[in-house]
Amino acid sequence: MNELIKLTARDAVSKLRAKEITPLDLIDAAEARIAETDGAINAMPTLCLDRARDHAKRIMAEPAAETGRGDLHGLPIAVKDLNDVAGVRTTFGSPIFADNVSERSDIMVTQLESKGAVVIGKSNTPEFGAGANTFNEVFGTTKNPWDTGTTCGGSSGGSAAALAAGQVWLATGSDLGGSLRIPASFCGVVGLRPSPGRVAHAPSAMPFDTMPVNGPMGRTVGDVALMLDAQAGQHRDDPLSLPPPDRPFVDAVDEPLAPKRVAFSADLGIAPVDSEVHEICTAAARRFADIGAAVEGDCIDFSDAVETFQTLRAAAFAASKGPLLEAHRDKLKPDVIWNIEKGLALSPDDIGRAERARSALFARTCAFFDSYDLLICPTVLAPPFDHRKAYLTEMNGVAFDNYVDWLMLTFVITLTVCPTISIPCGVTASGLPVGLQIMAPPRGEAALLSAAALFEQAYGQTDAVPVDPRCG
Amino acid sequence: MNELIKLTARDAVSKLRAKEITPLDLIDAAEARIAETDGAINAMPTLCLDRARDHAKRIMAEPAAETGRGDLHGLPIAVKDLNDVAGVRTTFGSPIFADNVSERSDIMVTQLESKGAVVIGKSNTPEFGAGANTFNEVFGTTKNPWDTGTTCGGSSGGSAAALAAGQVWLATGSDLGGSLRIPASFCGVVGLRPSPGRVAHAPSAMPFDTMPVNGPMGRTVGDVALMLDAQAGQHRDDPLSLPPPDRPFVDAVDEPLAPKRVAFSADLGIAPVDSEVHEICTAAARRFADIGAAVEGDCIDFSDAVETFQTLRAAAFAASKGPLLEAHRDKLKPDVIWNIEKGLALSPDDIGRAERARSALFARTCAFFDSYDLLICPTVLAPPFDHRKAYLTEMNGVAFDNYVDWLMLTFVITLTVCPTISIPCGVTASGLPVGLQIMAPPRGEAALLSAAALFEQAYGQTDAVPVDPRCG
Repeated sequence: MNELIKLTARDAVSKLRAKEITPLDLIDAAEARIAETDGAINAMPTLCLDRARDHAKRIMAEPAAETGRGDLHGLPIAVKDLNDVAGVRTTFGSPIFADNVSERSDIMVTQLESKGAVVIGKSNTPEFGAGANTFNEVFGTTKNPWDTGTTCGGSSGGSAAALAAGQVWLATGSDLGGSLRIPASFCGVVGLRPSPGRVAHAPSAMPFDTMPVNGPMGRTVGDVALMLDAQAGQHRDDPLSLPPPDRPFVDAVDEPLAPKRVAFSADLGIAPVDSEVHEICTAAARRFADIGAAVEGDCIDFSDAVETFQTLRAAAFAASKGPLLEAHRDKLKPDVIWNIEKGLALSPDDIGRAERARSALFARTCAFFDSYDLLICPTVLAPPFDHRKAYLTEMNGVAFDNYVDWLMLTFVITLTVCPTISIPCGVTASGLPVGLQIMAPPRGEAALLSAAALFEQAYGQTDAVPVDPRCG
Repeated sequence: MNELIKLTARDAVSKLRAKEITPLDLIDAAEARIAETDGAINAMPTLCLDRARDHAKRIMAEPAAETGRGDLHGLPIAVKDLNDVAGVRTTFGSPIFADNVSERSDIMVTQLESKGAVVIGKSNTPEFGAGANTFNEVFGTTKNPWDTGTTCGGSSGGSAAALAAGQVWLATGSDLGGSLRIPASFCGVVGLRPSPGRVAHAPSAMPFDTMPVNGPMGRTVGDVALMLDAQAGQHRDDPLSLPPPDRPFVDAVDEPLAPKRVAFSADLGIAPVDSEVHEICTAAARRFADIGAAVEGDCIDFSDAVETFQTLRAAAFAASKGPLLEAHRDKLKPDVIWNIEKGLALSPDDIGRAERARSALFARTCAFFDSYDLLICPTVLAPPFDHRKAYLTEMNGVAFDNYVDWLMLTFVITLTVCPTISIPCGVTASGLPVGLQIMAPPRGEAALLSAAALFEQAYGQTDAVPVDPRCG
């Protein structure tokens, strides 16, 4: 195994900046590692290495690079196959788009490229990102590098698995119900769901919707902060996009402020949680006391949030994908059809009630953060499971009758628009990763990264990269 | 008439800062002017002068004030009666809330007060801000100071009329379908609809909705820029709120950059427009050539935007006011009932189609601004009319069968989230004001204020304050 793939993204960027290595060296290392591992995990079904090497050469031919915020200096990245990369196949995980080649890049990709990111491939995703087990009719299933019999999670499953297997240093993801956080939890990497608008993204079917976001994934908290610095910024074509923050996000990692008051709930008051996940996350939460925080058992009232999210998700599916159902019903998976039809069967009063409930939840959330700096909980209510199971159908005797419900620990937080991160916090007896979810007040990415960095410094594997997973 | 009321807000603030006058002097002047004029126009039905004088004394007792961005140094303002002011009656123009006294202030009010604004009263609004003729069962009708037989517009009609009559120097407004712009046009003042999130606002029934916004109103472009500086800023409790811009908005007024390419449409391709309004606005648009811009006849394709807005407005009414209809049908005006019931009768597919149409319109808008810096058009398709007419029912043979359609020149722009301003650009033969609407690309408030300031400097009445209207 090439030593370069063990570098953190921040270290790799330092070496690129110092010209100790070139972008081409990293592309070579990534290509070799993908060749070595992707047969087992199927994380990166579409590569664009010629395009990447052309881009790398252009970067290398440029005069001495800027060293501005978020500069990546030619670092290779993976882009989730829900985002357009000009000239590269973009399938959205759907047979309908199996042969689609994007004419233009998503502005999120353009922004990363303007910061010196080099796209080397597209990471696998469930059809239209629907679901948290990464399989589709176009490319098949992505496996968990920690145990290729288990799911890598999703929907940014290809990105998480590629990171865990050491194929790339950074990867993009997106998140509606937990798609940046769940695969990070299952693959032992870091995924951060930012505030809506933090990462500008277009084209979008629903540009005014505050629930779906794009965001960074990496193997360390610092790497994710670096990528968020590269991604953050206002863009005319994303009506929700935010100007960059006053201070770079990496500053929050390098000079972290310890949280003072932390609330912990192992189940958010709503979820049946696997006993091992419960135990690991409870122990992890206690560690925040050692960092200097007062840790209390407390929680926002999420009691009506599952129904609220399911209603708003269905309405959004109907709005964004209704025409697809009309035109291509035979090419859509049953779960997507179910979700669109659920939306089309709602009444405006159902939708209105859900919107009112979301507003009330947001008000409760703001009030909660008068008393606490952070809320901590598990990312997923179970550890990774057999990837042949489309989704988890039961936990502790509670049945889940659709492909979304088992993701409740992440999707109820989506409703609040609060930034949220999943960081590795332990492994099960069978050696599978468990993620801890940390939630900060609205726009509180810096507080989130501070706390996550302190936890990682104190308790993480500093050599956290599982670059030699069982598949390797 | 007290000379103080003729001051612009910026001049009044300069004198306050220099301690040439005190906030109490201005409150006295405002009180006298309200006593003199409000019997005729009914713009400020609720005063809170004791609260204002207490606040003024606290400001005067403070050590030398900061001179930060947007500081108002004790300037009296009016707050639209849709926004809570702690300890003051807030009716929303509805008999349901006729005796409601707010416990807490809206964060928009708190923000203004933190910048030294002194609230002296609540300005009248139609019931729940619904409609652009300011009448309600609680306080009656607000009249246009330029001709008390005509409507002042709405829904921020009380604020616009109070400004035009010289009762206050600045006033707050809000805008869903044009409520900051339409009354500004009818009353010969300036109203700016900012980007969503520019002015943080809470509590809100629909905090994730990008269509309703709060914003500033004043008698000059510079005054509106000053107020926007006082209002702008991020707040945890408004999930869409934006950090303040890098440069104060008053800089755009003081050092304006001339627009280079301006598109003009007298009807946005959709509206029947009164011939006098057409002529006055066409002449005004031509003046942008003298400012140095190339002015071309061109327009965004708004052809499906009326239906799109009406659908989304109805859906939002159903979501935010459905419970009111259930509990208080007998206390709601027919137009509000119609709008809620229209929303409740929609299908999710109707709503989805409207959302997709809005997304497409947003994409067309962004593409349009590749070619132009601004789009200019009339603010309202007619001049002020008899205030006993609830709304305009016809123009040039085109019938309007509801209370919203006649506002199409403003509400189609709402869909785009582009900032928009209405500035006075002329008067009709019968001496009634006509407003010119200027629209900038997303987040382009500075470009908007620049262009408006250049127009005002070249062609506005520099002594633009109609402080001696016919009612005076």
